[in-house]
Amino acid sequence: MSQEIVLTGIKPTGKVHLGNYIAAIKPALAIAQERPCTALYFIADYHGLTFIQDRNEFNDLSYGIAATWLAIGLDPERVIFYRQSDVPEIFELSWILSCLTPKGLMNRAHAYKAALDTNQQLDVDPDTGVNMGLFTYPILMAADILLFQSDIVPVGKDQIQHVEIARDIAEAFNRNYGETFKMPNYLVDEHTAVIPGLDGRKMSKSYNNTIPLFETAENLKKLIGKIKTDSTPPHEPKEPDTSNIFSLYTHFATPDQIEAFRDQFRSGISWGDAKQELFRVVNAFLEQPREKYNDLIASPDQIDKILYEGAQKARALAAPLLNEVKQRIGRYR
Amino acid sequence: MSQEIVLTGIKPTGKVHLGNYIAAIKPALAIAQERPCTALYFIADYHGLTFIQDRNEFNDLSYGIAATWLAIGLDPERVIFYRQSDVPEIFELSWILSCLTPKGLMNRAHAYKAALDTNQQLDVDPDTGVNMGLFTYPILMAADILLFQSDIVPVGKDQIQHVEIARDIAEAFNRNYGETFKMPNYLVDEHTAVIPGLDGRKMSKSYNNTIPLFETAENLKKLIGKIKTDSTPPHEPKEPDTSNIFSLYTHFATPDQIEAFRDQFRSGISWGDAKQELFRVVNAFLEQPREKYNDLIASPDQIDKILYEGAQKARALAAPLLNEVKQRIGRYR
Repeated sequence: MSQEIVLTGIKPTGKVHLGNYIAAIKPALAIAQERPCTALYFIADYHGLTFIQDRNEFNDLSYGIAATWLAIGLDPERVIFYRQSDVPEIFELSWILSCLTPKGLMNRAHAYKAALDTNQQLDVDPDTGVNMGLFTYPILMAADILLFQSDIVPVGKDQIQHVEIARDIAEAFNRNYGETFKMPNYLVDEHTAVIPGLDGRKMSKSYNNTIPLFETAENLKKLIGKIKTDSTPPHEPKEPDTSNIFSLYTHFATPDQIEAFRDQFRSGISWGDAKQELFRVVNAFLEQPREKYNDLIASPDQIDKILYEGAQKARALAAPLLNEVKQRIGRYR
Repeated sequence: MSQEIVLTGIKPTGKVHLGNYIAAIKPALAIAQERPCTALYFIADYHGLTFIQDRNEFNDLSYGIAATWLAIGLDPERVIFYRQSDVPEIFELSWILSCLTPKGLMNRAHAYKAALDTNQQLDVDPDTGVNMGLFTYPILMAADILLFQSDIVPVGKDQIQHVEIARDIAEAFNRNYGETFKMPNYLVDEHTAVIPGLDGRKMSKSYNNTIPLFETAENLKKLIGKIKTDSTPPHEPKEPDTSNIFSLYTHFATPDQIEAFRDQFRSGISWGDAKQELFRVVNAFLEQPREKYNDLIASPDQIDKILYEGAQKARALAAPLLNEVKQRIGRYR
């Protein structure tokens, strides 16, 4: 019996911060470790092209995100890790699927509708600034998913619709050409932690309150020093469960460390000492990954080699299905 | 100095008839013979998928059209003859280009607008029956053209817009990423002959008045027998320049034969004898191609081999450009 296929797409985005790691990367890596499955992780670089059309930015982001995941725990020996743009089968399947996709399905996709809303508010042509990559990328995502007969697609809530669209397209194909594609299921982590940023609000690039994952130890210390605290005097007891420092600490410390830290809060610890302790555990956790990250970024050939080998495995997995699809549409005599 | 690239796309359509041969295939083959160029001819099978979603029909049409062109004069030793679906680079480039294509450009494409008009008349949702293959295929066509740095694209008048769209997309890419794509030019045959069908109207499948190219000699004779004539008695002089029989004859006979036939018309020839003479020259012209066609259709492996070898040549031509494109967008470090 073949194993469940779990497929995780990784969008190339800006500098990864602690919040991304805790809320997205760590749970995504856990899924493949917790269940017996064939796990595929891919850098969705060509999705990024819909909104990053600057050469250097595109390059930095796609190498940076690959190095981040490799440095922080993704083991390419245990999972299949590849770059979307190294798997041409995806784009061929995407074309085939587009011929089975009613245009109405794309008209209703969230990202496109959001653009329409913005343009309506600006009182300009509804399609202003919309490129065809943005309009059609749910089809590319369907190809990403369906090419590997994925069973499970872990996604954020905003991506549920895309998995549903992939199912709709798969159904349309199966109805017309006979049972071919498996129906993928989305998996949403309902308990996503909200990670506080420097100012106490959710850590987010748009609030400019983040702690990047791979800063130098020195910068990490400085940033942690900037975490907003209240004016409780140094020796007074402090409530751990409302403290941003304590909250961040729980994600990197051991249960014993957390218990001890909690006691210190209750018996009175200065904010300075608390920050010092937070820095100590976060830095200890990040020391090796940071070194690995810097090492990978300094020799992108290593990244290319890992991703290329992953792509070869992914292509070997995909080839029989694409061949079957082409049989079914009538490509072969 | 590298030679001009001439690229001709061949849509898989139904049974090819004499009108298709004279008005489209013959001039398309002549272009590559008349100018020193690298000629690429390809079966646009994946374009066909936008409207042919029946396995057998798709299969028959794409093998049939390949066999037709090979039988009627396309020499795969002299030109590069391939099947679109054997060149995955096209689909990858198509995705890249889609990210540079404003949606507005597709909203204005003829085929899509025709569908909108029809739906408006039927008073149904504007996108009823429109699949995303139909909506986006001008981008795929741009990829077909731009991947080979095509200089010249011979097209029918209805396809001029598609070459213009390819230019628009190429310009958008060049503007953003620097000079990469050559600007393709369309070439329209202004003197396209109108070939009369059995009833005297233009030979066209929609009028059900065609003479298929590869009928048996017996059927060809029967069909020519059905060409509509007037009631001029057998021995009276007849006007060659208004006769459908004479018109068809001019496309298959030598200048001397045409002159002699003209004289026979002027001095009086029965319609029966005129049809007999038309059958004689058309059949003589088609005898060998018909045999070759039947031979190819009987062993599709031959067709696959020819097209696959063509695809290898096409891919070798395309690879450096796709690589350059990927460099420019920032795919490589």
